Amino acid sequence: MQILKSSAAELAPEFGIMAGRWSQYSGLSAMPFGAMWCMIPPGGHSNTDCHPEAELVMVMQGTLHVQANGREEVAPAGTAVLLDSTEEHVLVNPSGQNPAVTLSIYWLPEDTSGPAPTATAGTER
Amino acid sequence: MQILKSSAAELAPEFGIMAGRWSQYSGLSAMPFGAMWCMIPPGGHSNTDCHPEAELVMVMQGTLHVQANGREEVAPAGTAVLLDSTEEHVLVNPSGQNPAVTLSIYWLPEDTSGPAPTATAGTER
Repeated sequence: MQILKSSAAELAPEFGIMAGRWSQYSGLSAMPFGAMWCMIPPGGHSNTDCHPEAELVMVMQGTLHVQANGREEVAPAGTAVLLDSTEEHVLVNPSGQNPAVTLSIYWLPEDTSGPAPTATAGTER
Repeated sequence: MQILKSSAAELAPEFGIMAGRWSQYSGLSAMPFGAMWCMIPPGGHSNTDCHPEAELVMVMQGTLHVQANGREEVAPAGTAVLLDSTEEHVLVNPSGQNPAVTLSIYWLPEDTSGPAPTATAGTER
């Protein structure tokens, strides 16, 4: 069991916000996705981001406004936001006082033109 | 963009708690892990669980006590708890009043005896 908290993580400026990539944790077993903490300061917002990876943004603290696909959705703590591959998105923290924290995980969608994928791990649990 | 909230999910009794498997969501693109919401009622706890999948438990609401490996750790909302493959664990909600909600994702660790894995997706983002 490993306990991981954004408050104890090393964060660095990236994407216009503060990011804490999980590559900083030594000894984590391999995971089929990349992961990072994102801290959006009060009144702050990320740069517009767009990448080939699909991304699942879990709002762990505060409330975010997530802009994507011409829409803006309110995502309070406890919400998960799934962004498709190449979907442009911006994370906005509308609070004047409180930071917002997410855990974002991301993965390259499988190439569906090849043989059947083998990495549908865990779906039978 | 898809907004996913445990409060709008269908939950059913499983593992001694209430679970909301993400297989209920139609149209989600494939993900390299399984996912489910878990709601542990006030004063409740899960059954002892043990499975070959590694599991990342993200505490989305409330506070959990996570028992694993002979230890008990306090995991307030915002915490991520990584459990190894076959690590026995119990999720305890010590609150007398408030439910605790997690998002748990899980995957089968890759077989490291074969050729180099190709599913290190997203780590270069």
